[in-house]
Amino acid sequence: MENHYIAGFVDGEGSFHVAFQRSKDVKIGWQAIPEFHISQNWPSKGVLEAIREKLGCGYVKSNHAKSTRDKTFVYVVRNRQDLIKKVIPFFETYSLHTEKWKDFQKFRTVVEMMEQNEHLSKEGFSKIVQIAYSMNAHGMYRKVGIEKILTSLKSSETIRSALVTESSK
Amino acid sequence: MENHYIAGFVDGEGSFHVAFQRSKDVKIGWQAIPEFHISQNWPSKGVLEAIREKLGCGYVKSNHAKSTRDKTFVYVVRNRQDLIKKVIPFFETYSLHTEKWKDFQKFRTVVEMMEQNEHLSKEGFSKIVQIAYSMNAHGMYRKVGIEKILTSLKSSETIRSALVTESSK
Repeated sequence: MENHYIAGFVDGEGSFHVAFQRSKDVKIGWQAIPEFHISQNWPSKGVLEAIREKLGCGYVKSNHAKSTRDKTFVYVVRNRQDLIKKVIPFFETYSLHTEKWKDFQKFRTVVEMMEQNEHLSKEGFSKIVQIAYSMNAHGMYRKVGIEKILTSLKSSETIRSALVTESSK
Repeated sequence: MENHYIAGFVDGEGSFHVAFQRSKDVKIGWQAIPEFHISQNWPSKGVLEAIREKLGCGYVKSNHAKSTRDKTFVYVVRNRQDLIKKVIPFFETYSLHTEKWKDFQKFRTVVEMMEQNEHLSKEGFSKIVQIAYSMNAHGMYRKVGIEKILTSLKSSETIRSALVTESSK
């Protein structure tokens, strides 16, 4: 499988996005989770395995939709060092040509900011949230609205009470 | 834009399919229309233009869905000589790796059969219909059910009366 083939395939089928979730492990109460992934129906699972092999990181797992009988598989890279050392340099060399290129650049910015620990301050985290929500990556992956995150970041008090609410569910 | 990039992009976003429509111009009353196409939302129209440039055939046109506000563009190749001399040889050299590869092979078979004029006989046309309907290419492109075509091929009488019905609408 050629590297440029992977670039073309990812330009059509891949996704660079940043998810957010509450976390008690970090002071500001939220975690940012950059993720690169590609989904395919089961007959084309082999392509995902071949791409995983080529990029040398991540994993392929089943991702069957509950609502349908479709069997889908997804190749996922979440490990930050793999994103920085493998995924990002790959697509810097083998360019995307669609609008997804802009998403990739924003994704890279977020990962680099996190590498500088900017996500640990409220200011840095707010910037990351705003960049992530300006990305085209499908809204379907967004489990939390931007307003909810930004509002909760405004006061530690809010975060703490929100966490209590979350954990008492 | 690299050729392998195009193969990867088409493996994700492209479609090889064969449409059917009634026609008074041919004796058996039906026409087979093999088509290669790629759709994209408007911000990525440039990629379609670049692929058209590389393949040296076809055209890019707007294809806005009536039901939504989405603006989409589609790159289309329908000319049989372009399919035979440009599109098919391209993907024989720069391979697809997903299940779409099977669709491509069936598509090539249909185009080659047509080049041998096999679509002008009922037997040949029936074979083409059966190959086309075994392809994965999205059902959304199918305006005519396979049964309708095969049944109407069984008797010229049926075809003639069907054509009269069609044209008297």
